[in-house]
Amino acid sequence: MKPVGIAAVGLGRWANVLADAYTRSEKVKLISCFSRTPEKREKFAERYNCEFDISLEAMLAREDIEMIIVTVPNDQHADVIEQCARAGKNVFVEKPISVSVEHAKRIDAVVEETGIKFLCGHSSRRLGALRKIKEMIDSKEIGEVSVIEAVFSNERGLELKKGNWRGDPVKTPAGPLTQLGIHQLDNLQFLLGPVKKVFNFGKPMYTEVDNITVNTTVLEFENGKQAYLGTNWACPGVFSINVYGTKANLFYQLDFSWWSNSDVTDEHSTLIKREFATMTDDPDNRMLRDVAVEFPVIDHLRVQVEEVADAIRNDGTTEISAEASLMNLAVVLAAVKSAQEDRVVAIQEIIG
Amino acid sequence: MKPVGIAAVGLGRWANVLADAYTRSEKVKLISCFSRTPEKREKFAERYNCEFDISLEAMLAREDIEMIIVTVPNDQHADVIEQCARAGKNVFVEKPISVSVEHAKRIDAVVEETGIKFLCGHSSRRLGALRKIKEMIDSKEIGEVSVIEAVFSNERGLELKKGNWRGDPVKTPAGPLTQLGIHQLDNLQFLLGPVKKVFNFGKPMYTEVDNITVNTTVLEFENGKQAYLGTNWACPGVFSINVYGTKANLFYQLDFSWWSNSDVTDEHSTLIKREFATMTDDPDNRMLRDVAVEFPVIDHLRVQVEEVADAIRNDGTTEISAEASLMNLAVVLAAVKSAQEDRVVAIQEIIG
Repeated sequence: MKPVGIAAVGLGRWANVLADAYTRSEKVKLISCFSRTPEKREKFAERYNCEFDISLEAMLAREDIEMIIVTVPNDQHADVIEQCARAGKNVFVEKPISVSVEHAKRIDAVVEETGIKFLCGHSSRRLGALRKIKEMIDSKEIGEVSVIEAVFSNERGLELKKGNWRGDPVKTPAGPLTQLGIHQLDNLQFLLGPVKKVFNFGKPMYTEVDNITVNTTVLEFENGKQAYLGTNWACPGVFSINVYGTKANLFYQLDFSWWSNSDVTDEHSTLIKREFATMTDDPDNRMLRDVAVEFPVIDHLRVQVEEVADAIRNDGTTEISAEASLMNLAVVLAAVKSAQEDRVVAIQEIIG
Repeated sequence: MKPVGIAAVGLGRWANVLADAYTRSEKVKLISCFSRTPEKREKFAERYNCEFDISLEAMLAREDIEMIIVTVPNDQHADVIEQCARAGKNVFVEKPISVSVEHAKRIDAVVEETGIKFLCGHSSRRLGALRKIKEMIDSKEIGEVSVIEAVFSNERGLELKKGNWRGDPVKTPAGPLTQLGIHQLDNLQFLLGPVKKVFNFGKPMYTEVDNITVNTTVLEFENGKQAYLGTNWACPGVFSINVYGTKANLFYQLDFSWWSNSDVTDEHSTLIKREFATMTDDPDNRMLRDVAVEFPVIDHLRVQVEEVADAIRNDGTTEISAEASLMNLAVVLAAVKSAQEDRVVAIQEIIG
């Protein structure tokens, strides 16, 4: 397969983390990059041994570029993606798809209209452990699931300065819920289907910015199952998923130190299955046991970009539609509304 | 110290688990027992080598009995405790203090009026690990706490038959929330102070009884901190507490297999502290490390009964007042109301 020519637009910290991953792939070839700041594009081009363009228009006019990796600020996703799509370029965009339903709907519409291949980077469901959890739920190896608890938190809010986009409630609704939680919302909807209703006690804590930095959120799904999502910018990094089944529970912990080293993230994770070692009529004489579960190591940041490349070469589809990414965002926005109005919010209210 | 003469009233399964614990103590001496069912009192008396009485009145008239261990059904606590208190007997009652605020207030009032020593069995906060967690929060060794997550769940709902008191929403409001969750609510209020507001998605799942068996509950405290409480009767046993602090997180897991063997529960538990191993300006180059935390082994079911004995001999107080136990119950009832009415409920609405 001829590598798909790609270019990076928006060259902040995460553009580098992604490039570290996709430049390990033989399915794509990084050709160019663009940022409005000349120093940024020169530095990125030098670091990854690629060209740079001096405008987005110039980049989109090139025939050797088939896919754009979009890591501009979240509130600029819609404008940039519309421009890329109308130029016939396929798009990978970092999560969240956008920070407003209106923008997400514009993206969904332009993807539909132009027929480009599109993927939003909910990389976490690509992890080997997540694939294993999904398989164990679907096969009913752990019985029927009642509840999943998911946490994705780190210390970001403690060091945020006023003026940073992460501290802006419009650019980053509910802070860690948009930046981290969206991964777990994608995982939860991947595992349990669509969310129906949300309640959230989110608010600012231990930060100087005027944005929610700590959220305790509960979710009810269309199929009646329940979940808890904890997203917090006031503690050392945590990424965990607990699944409660009628036959067994699963406890998954990922060492957040290795989150950005996507080739080894799975190697620094543990998945434990808790089951009955002995089952007796007397509940005081039942013994539990914890067993380690094996799972494949998957480079979560690389494979998502490769999936778009495969879809381009084989005219295939990508696993996560723009609409599914919109539904992940909708849960975030429902949780924000819930915290603001101190009431349960239905997803239907958000997507209209 | 002369052992305090005690007697057990209500001789179901838990009366035996408690007796296994307090008969290891030299501070109390089991003298008699009573159940309305003759076979039960004869069997208990034989097993624990004590006398039995043929009526509660006869037992309460005895001068050699100073404390009554009350494990009658939850909705009979108030009547039995009033009878004991008016006979001048001190009382240890198993949690929950009652299943209605009215009953809990009656208990609080009669304890106040008669001046008896009283304790409700929220044994879990007695565990060595809980004492260590409290110390690490209060000393700010883990920085400022934003969120605590607590789970206490087991498989009880899967095997409940219609007619069992655990399946009755009046006798056991929200099932595992009353029976298991009340321990964690006591722990949470022990660690963070009084709860202010509650939301709960609780409902029946995977059971034949008409009672809530799965709850995902979030709490806001008077001091602004937040918590999640998961209580579920549809999975293998779990007892866990996660504390998120600005400097470190704590992860506590107790092996539920050993819950009823209260002398070794702490030996089958782990407490992990997660902190930064390296702190740099670059968030992608920070490393986390997990460190095991030591804690004392405490027989949680024994020490609570001994505390009442000490209070009797030294005219001291017990750690948990009847009013504090009422506040634990109030959170349960707020969570039930929240699930019924699909809205956030303030504790003030419940206690009036």
